[in-house]
Amino acid sequence: MASFTTHASAQPLKNADELIDSVETFIFDCDGVIWKGDSLIEGVPETLDLLRSKGKRLVFVTNNSTKSRKQYGKKFETLGLDVSEEEIFASSFAVAAYLKSIDFPKNKKVYVIGEEGILKELELAGYQYLGGPEDGSKKIELKPGFLMEHDEEVGAVVVGFDRYFNYYKVQYGTLSIRENPGCLFIATNRDAVTHLTDAQEWAGGGSMVGALVGSTQREPLVVGKPSTFMMDYLADKFGIQKSQICMVGDRLDTDILFGQNGGCKTLLVLSGVTSLTTLQSPNNKIQPDFYTNKISDFLSLKAATV
Amino acid sequence: MASFTTHASAQPLKNADELIDSVETFIFDCDGVIWKGDSLIEGVPETLDLLRSKGKRLVFVTNNSTKSRKQYGKKFETLGLDVSEEEIFASSFAVAAYLKSIDFPKNKKVYVIGEEGILKELELAGYQYLGGPEDGSKKIELKPGFLMEHDEEVGAVVVGFDRYFNYYKVQYGTLSIRENPGCLFIATNRDAVTHLTDAQEWAGGGSMVGALVGSTQREPLVVGKPSTFMMDYLADKFGIQKSQICMVGDRLDTDILFGQNGGCKTLLVLSGVTSLTTLQSPNNKIQPDFYTNKISDFLSLKAATV
Repeated sequence: MASFTTHASAQPLKNADELIDSVETFIFDCDGVIWKGDSLIEGVPETLDLLRSKGKRLVFVTNNSTKSRKQYGKKFETLGLDVSEEEIFASSFAVAAYLKSIDFPKNKKVYVIGEEGILKELELAGYQYLGGPEDGSKKIELKPGFLMEHDEEVGAVVVGFDRYFNYYKVQYGTLSIRENPGCLFIATNRDAVTHLTDAQEWAGGGSMVGALVGSTQREPLVVGKPSTFMMDYLADKFGIQKSQICMVGDRLDTDILFGQNGGCKTLLVLSGVTSLTTLQSPNNKIQPDFYTNKISDFLSLKAATV
Repeated sequence: MASFTTHASAQPLKNADELIDSVETFIFDCDGVIWKGDSLIEGVPETLDLLRSKGKRLVFVTNNSTKSRKQYGKKFETLGLDVSEEEIFASSFAVAAYLKSIDFPKNKKVYVIGEEGILKELELAGYQYLGGPEDGSKKIELKPGFLMEHDEEVGAVVVGFDRYFNYYKVQYGTLSIRENPGCLFIATNRDAVTHLTDAQEWAGGGSMVGALVGSTQREPLVVGKPSTFMMDYLADKFGIQKSQICMVGDRLDTDILFGQNGGCKTLLVLSGVTSLTTLQSPNNKIQPDFYTNKISDFLSLKAATV
């Protein structure tokens, strides 16, 4: 799915106005761009105000599926940012949007390996589900002859980050995928690590997805970055041309690749996980169009060029 | 690691004596060859007696790492089979044998995602370990700023089938592999499914290994089938030429591939997971030298040719 077209080396962003004027929509990754853990990154409110004052559409995209759109809305509010639910695209929402886009039958069920965000979005979209946090305490007694029953109406298994991951869930998801004819295998993302706390990197959704890949020998359909599903959905919903989008993120292999896969302009910010050394390393094959320290450089680079 | 050389189509075994006379060692997979779950397969004791009476060396190999050699010995005894511990090679033992083969330092520790068999074999070999079943009830509280401490002396993470698999273990193993310089990542096997009970297929060691591959983006060193580590070890330990070995198993992608990767003769038995239809399907690229219904065909095919 990922395309690794070689791009020319990234240029430092020098004239922010030129970039801003060249697009109509900015898609922002959240962690490492808007906030770090629970702290807002310096200058973000003023930057978003500037972009809104210029009539730009703002969209916030995250691979984190533990919260719903509504729950993310509260996080923005707590940080003092005026962002509406409709501007937020979390991979939890992307799961429900994907099921709608393929007319997934409402009489079928979704088995969830993941947290509350996915359940809330499925519920809002009117889908029946099972699994999720409540299966986190279930155990399997492997007595001779024991058989785990599973629901034959499960038509999709959705896998996202799950701190209550266990063998019960692996087996339930595996049985559904292997034994229910046509059962879909959908992943919110395959991120190796995630930033659940500021203190260290935590094993990400890629570990839960990897477990199911190992036991089913099937590849999932990924709805989060770097797959283009969310980009296609956004372009379609808002009627935007992809060349009129600038994707802004702190990760090369998700955010920047996501932007490039979608045919958008790309801006890497160094306020998250990627350092300038990593960007410029000969081992790095993913080059954004531009890079800068943080999004509030839009303010100072603007001032410098006026 | 796996070699997929195309072999000519498998032949039905017609003259067992000829095969028996052509080798000095038989390596048997256990589940689906010697027993199914907790039941001995018909004619096995007489077949093993016949092979011993002809002076053949017998070796029993299993990817299952939940038991130690000694614990497997008891299973053979319970089923009425006279097999010594030294003839049994489980992937739990292979882990310890591998660490010995590379002179893994005794002052380093091994973090185990797996069950008792691995712990027992590490203990017998004199290695320090942590993890295993006792981490099965550990939970992570993802409070802001929380950091999981890990032991910097962990020099190897071993991953095998683990019914008590959880996020704590995934994160501990991931931290060790990502942050401890030179830390090894060793898998007992990557089997998609395993036969913990007769009633259904269960997600196998491949799911635990897949989770760690997903979060570390590293590939493990596999000590079980179809990797040739155990074959090399056996050949070296007993001074056997690999062409003098016949590998007998019920699975194409582990047993038969294991035999072929090692340069041995191969015999598929249809008493386990593989049907004649699967063997002869155009999609199957793995062809053993011979196939037969069950190992006790050695007795009747012998009688027919005398």
